[in-house]
Amino acid sequence: MIPRLTDAERAALVDLLPEWSLAKDRDAIERRFAFADFSEAFAFMTRVALLAEKHDHHPEWSNVYNRVTILLSTHDAGGLSARDIRLAEAIDGLA
Amino acid sequence: MIPRLTDAERAALVDLLPEWSLAKDRDAIERRFAFADFSEAFAFMTRVALLAEKHDHHPEWSNVYNRVTILLSTHDAGGLSARDIRLAEAIDGLA
Repeated sequence: MIPRLTDAERAALVDLLPEWSLAKDRDAIERRFAFADFSEAFAFMTRVALLAEKHDHHPEWSNVYNRVTILLSTHDAGGLSARDIRLAEAIDGLA
Repeated sequence: MIPRLTDAERAALVDLLPEWSLAKDRDAIERRFAFADFSEAFAFMTRVALLAEKHDHHPEWSNVYNRVTILLSTHDAGGLSARDIRLAEAIDGLA
């Protein structure tokens, strides 16, 4: 079992990942991205897919034309863990 | 404005696209796919993305690890059109 984030780690999220917000009905973080068109959105998704495989941690995500929504949570933790923070930081590094 | 499917065309969907079902709260069709892992799921998504660009018609879709859900509807028709059928048939051709 992977440990969930502590209260102190959660409090630090606002500064650490200012573009991400806590999901409403899940112990998860999410971020929405908008691009010029589908081609740019899917190019970004491809880079995120490579990151996900590298981290062995995968997003729950959706795409509608130029928009991409990414939700991160850790199944083996039953909620947010350090793995989500690391992947979110890596994704932010692309954007 | 693109014409929506007629009643006769809708009645034919069961035979034409047996793997697809009507969405519950949208005038749309959807299909769920399951793969061995994320890598296979995303490889499939990449092929669907190429089809979407070729057809100039894009899915609303989501992915969680090995699962992919695709919903097709035509914004410019306010619901299902022949474009959705053509793209669904092309996607079935990959699977």
